[in-house]
Amino acid sequence: MGTFEGHLLPGLGLLMYAIYYSSLMSLALLRKQRMLKHPLLPRKLLGCRLFLPVSYEAVVKVAIPAFATVCEYYYPLGVNRLKMIDWKDPRRLFVFKDNWEHVTMFGFFILSGIADIVSQAQRAPWSVKLERAAEALTFYVVALLMISHIENKSVLEIRVHLLVGLPAFLLGLLLTVEIWVPDNAPLWVLKSWMALVLSTWMLQICEMYIPFTGQPWRADNPTDLAFITIFFCWHLVLGLTLLITIYGLCSLWHHHYSSWTKTLGARYQRCLTESSSEELEKLNAEAVAQDGGV
Amino acid sequence: MGTFEGHLLPGLGLLMYAIYYSSLMSLALLRKQRMLKHPLLPRKLLGCRLFLPVSYEAVVKVAIPAFATVCEYYYPLGVNRLKMIDWKDPRRLFVFKDNWEHVTMFGFFILSGIADIVSQAQRAPWSVKLERAAEALTFYVVALLMISHIENKSVLEIRVHLLVGLPAFLLGLLLTVEIWVPDNAPLWVLKSWMALVLSTWMLQICEMYIPFTGQPWRADNPTDLAFITIFFCWHLVLGLTLLITIYGLCSLWHHHYSSWTKTLGARYQRCLTESSSEELEKLNAEAVAQDGGV
Amino acid sequence: MGTFEGHLLPGLGLLMYAIYYSSLMSLALLRKQRMLKHPLLPRKLLGCRLFLPVSYEAVVKVAIPAFATVCEYYYPLGVNRLKMIDWKDPRRLFVFKDNWEHVTMFGFFILSGIADIVSQAQRAPWSVKLERAAEALTFYVVALLMISHIENKSVLEIRVHLLVGLPAFLLGLLLTVEIWVPDNAPLWVLKSWMALVLSTWMLQICEMYIPFTGQPWRADNPTDLAFITIFFCWHLVLGLTLLITIYGLCSLWHHHYSSWTKTLGARYQRCLTESSSEELEKLNAEAVAQDGGV
Amino acid sequence: MGTFEGHLLPGLGLLMYAIYYSSLMSLALLRKQRMLKHPLLPRKLLGCRLFLPVSYEAVVKVAIPAFATVCEYYYPLGVNRLKMIDWKDPRRLFVFKDNWEHVTMFGFFILSGIADIVSQAQRAPWSVKLERAAEALTFYVVALLMISHIENKSVLEIRVHLLVGLPAFLLGLLLTVEIWVPDNAPLWVLKSWMALVLSTWMLQICEMYIPFTGQPWRADNPTDLAFITIFFCWHLVLGLTLLITIYGLCSLWHHHYSSWTKTLGARYQRCLTESSSEELEKLNAEAVAQDGGV
Repeated sequence: MGTFEGHLLPGLGLLMYAIYYSSLMSLALLRKQRMLKHPLLPRKLLGCRLFLPVSYEAVVKVAIPAFATVCEYYYPLGVNRLKMIDWKDPRRLFVFKDNWEHVTMFGFFILSGIADIVSQAQRAPWSVKLERAAEALTFYVVALLMISHIENKSVLEIRVHLLVGLPAFLLGLLLTVEIWVPDNAPLWVLKSWMALVLSTWMLQICEMYIPFTGQPWRADNPTDLAFITIFFCWHLVLGLTLLITIYGLCSLWHHHYSSWTKTLGARYQRCLTESSSEELEKLNAEAVAQDGGV
Repeated sequence: MGTFEGHLLPGLGLLMYAIYYSSLMSLALLRKQRMLKHPLLPRKLLGCRLFLPVSYEAVVKVAIPAFATVCEYYYPLGVNRLKMIDWKDPRRLFVFKDNWEHVTMFGFFILSGIADIVSQAQRAPWSVKLERAAEALTFYVVALLMISHIENKSVLEIRVHLLVGLPAFLLGLLLTVEIWVPDNAPLWVLKSWMALVLSTWMLQICEMYIPFTGQPWRADNPTDLAFITIFFCWHLVLGLTLLITIYGLCSLWHHHYSSWTKTLGARYQRCLTESSSEELEKLNAEAVAQDGGV
Repeated sequence: MGTFEGHLLPGLGLLMYAIYYSSLMSLALLRKQRMLKHPLLPRKLLGCRLFLPVSYEAVVKVAIPAFATVCEYYYPLGVNRLKMIDWKDPRRLFVFKDNWEHVTMFGFFILSGIADIVSQAQRAPWSVKLERAAEALTFYVVALLMISHIENKSVLEIRVHLLVGLPAFLLGLLLTVEIWVPDNAPLWVLKSWMALVLSTWMLQICEMYIPFTGQPWRADNPTDLAFITIFFCWHLVLGLTLLITIYGLCSLWHHHYSSWTKTLGARYQRCLTESSSEELEKLNAEAVAQDGGV
Repeated sequence: MGTFEGHLLPGLGLLMYAIYYSSLMSLALLRKQRMLKHPLLPRKLLGCRLFLPVSYEAVVKVAIPAFATVCEYYYPLGVNRLKMIDWKDPRRLFVFKDNWEHVTMFGFFILSGIADIVSQAQRAPWSVKLERAAEALTFYVVALLMISHIENKSVLEIRVHLLVGLPAFLLGLLLTVEIWVPDNAPLWVLKSWMALVLSTWMLQICEMYIPFTGQPWRADNPTDLAFITIFFCWHLVLGLTLLITIYGLCSLWHHHYSSWTKTLGARYQRCLTESSSEELEKLNAEAVAQDGGV
């Protein structure tokens, strides 16, 4: 899926995750929490009781890549790419390398999701370390595959992919540091920012498939190459802007919410069930409940 | 502006900043301050009252790059380079890549200036971290653009630009470390030194446009290439010499000034209004005032 | 020995060592030991008394590479490669470069084994540092030789060898950190995992000599190149799976053993001599004995 | 001086320094000193009184490179290479690039010597930091020049010079760490070892000018290239062997000396004047005197 859709889905998935993580981090900063808590799914879901505590994050990490994996193999309906070697050909050629590369990446995201579920079920002192290590591994693998992706490609594609690999590697590095230093707020901020940059850059790559100007990008033109790096620098600022916007919205919500719960709290100790059924609201209620429990 | 003037302005701007920062740092060392304080503009400026505390540094960081940006677009009067795509050409070519690269760099310096203003207005515990992070980002962007600048250039230009990128990257690294360790004096010294080296090296590049010998540098000559690295090493020593000179002058001034204020201080508690209107004097008075306030 | 056997022996040796180290580490984690203790050979071996305490690990580190070294020089019986320069040729050519490269690597493993023996005999505060430093040196040398190995090879071989060099370098890095931080459990886990990845990757290289599909790998085919990196990523997961399996088995054994010794311990204080003569059992008994002694 | 002698002098100079430093370090370890003290020249030298305390080390760092610098310019008697541009040639070519490169390196060693003298005269808390920083700078410059040295050379020379640059860079890195952590014994050991490796490797380069086999090294032969890396690995072991030998000799001397001073010390408090006039003896006496003073 070296196509528009093939980059759109992971890009949007990452963006969603980056926005979710950024708002989680913003609320943690506003509430002066020392550790980042991941809101859990309600124990009773669709009528059946979950036998494990599962965070929203882990569900997203497992569900979206799993869907993408299925797409990689079967997407234009009717095809089946679930084979690695063309056994009919006497040369036994490998086939569908791009798909297997993408599936490998998705597999590591799923692995990270599973690590989250396991660690949240155990709540051992090593839980946070395991989660961070699994995430770091995921982004290292992304960076490694980006580097090997560039074999036999045009100089334009090489640069685009190296600029995906750079924030992925930095994310891996930040997450590796977090294995040992999990409670450092500046690291959270840097991580959110890098994740936002990575995801908006993925969407920029989508733009390169359907160029804004109606003219394809030219790999043989040094000017086009130069503008790729320039645009990457602008994405760094775009990531910052998104981060500040998310923090601003969370701040507004936090101040509004805390004054509201204070007023309400005078009458009832807890009346969260009355709150609207909105996603974010519920999510936060969960977080607050956890907060109270600590 | 891949020209003499195009390198002179940023070079001189950086040099001014590096000298200013070095003297600030020297005075901080002489006064045994644990944190580096940035002198602020007087609250009453040109008759109107500033509604925010703004440091001299932030003003310089915003003003000089803003001026340079305007020059990039409009400098030989009559031209207008404020467009990115040549819409008249059916191929929709990107245009003015060098200008957009330079503007991007200047933009990050402006961003760092804005971060300074915001953080100095808030005086939160994260203020210093934010300032350092914004500066680090600026220099990383400079290094990244230097690396991508070398595409399709002669080996001479590649080496010159890599040797700009090296101190820029090291500055970024030092500033990144300072996000977590802001009060380490050796880091300040290294930072001042690197900034001096970066700026004198920028001026060296100017020399390469108007060579001293009257003969252009030859990209095809390994001897010329070798001398670039040799000269870079000499700039390392030149930076050190400048740093020691600045420290020496600050030391003289500090000892003279402290004995003078001691004598004066016996009669009046504070008679700084009598001091000469010199830039440095005023600047320092501000710093002392801050000092007293802490 | 750039052959199937030449990669099988080191690969199996490393795998054995990685599995041994992983189970040691798992037991240390299960017993909440702060330092990793290396079980020693029984003082009385084959009737004669050892005059030095020697760990199993050191014996393995010395014996296997020593055997491999002999093989390098004399393996297809009848040959003798123990010379470096062809003195008969007037050009005095160097000969058997691959063998000397491999022997150099094996030599560093032997050196590390000797360092272990020396440090275990001394039990000084610097003992652990020395052991880690010698191991780190070994893996750095492996990485360095892998990098220089790629001269004049096909792009396929280059990539395969770089992917050997990568985990070897990371192992070196982890071991270097352990010189100063020897008691950090996450570092042990990372180390075990990297060692497992390195050894299974060595075995994967063996597979490339006798391909599964019956068709040789093609260096001129970008698809084959891409699959090498993909397979490396899968080996990362394979290493994790092995690590979890080993930890699981150790955990079972540990719980079974500790409940068993508790029951037995009520009657006799120590009846370890009744235990089966299995390798692992003995190994552990030794460790327990050490444990008690500390 | 890209010649036999041109590499012999710096090689021997470095080796002398590395051996000196290793014995200093060994004695510091044996005496369990927390800081490494540099023995000073006697205050009264050749009849005249020194007005500054000067360490042997600083004298060596200044004297040998100064001599080498003079050789670079005037060595085959009668020549004069003290010019950088050939003004007679209308093309104004740079000349004597290798000499200026070497002189630049020597200059940084002299600078480090001067930094030592200044810091030993001041004995401020920043003294050690300054010394280490100047040394680190020296080795970084060596590494940088080695990297730029390789332009337009054969692949053999490139590899040889990169393998000079590697230990030089690592030395720089170790010394940079020592700016902040000056009292860490493992760092001293690593530093001594790297310095020994660097200097024996310089002597190995000399061998390459006058090959042992009587046949020149072939740049176009991958076997010759492979053996360069192999030999470098052996130099790593040679460095270790030298280090252990030096430590052993120092240990013997230390134990002999301490038992001897103990016996003697019962009768006279201090009778060091009776000791032989040997260099090492005197050097150590100085160190002991310092020791006593602390």
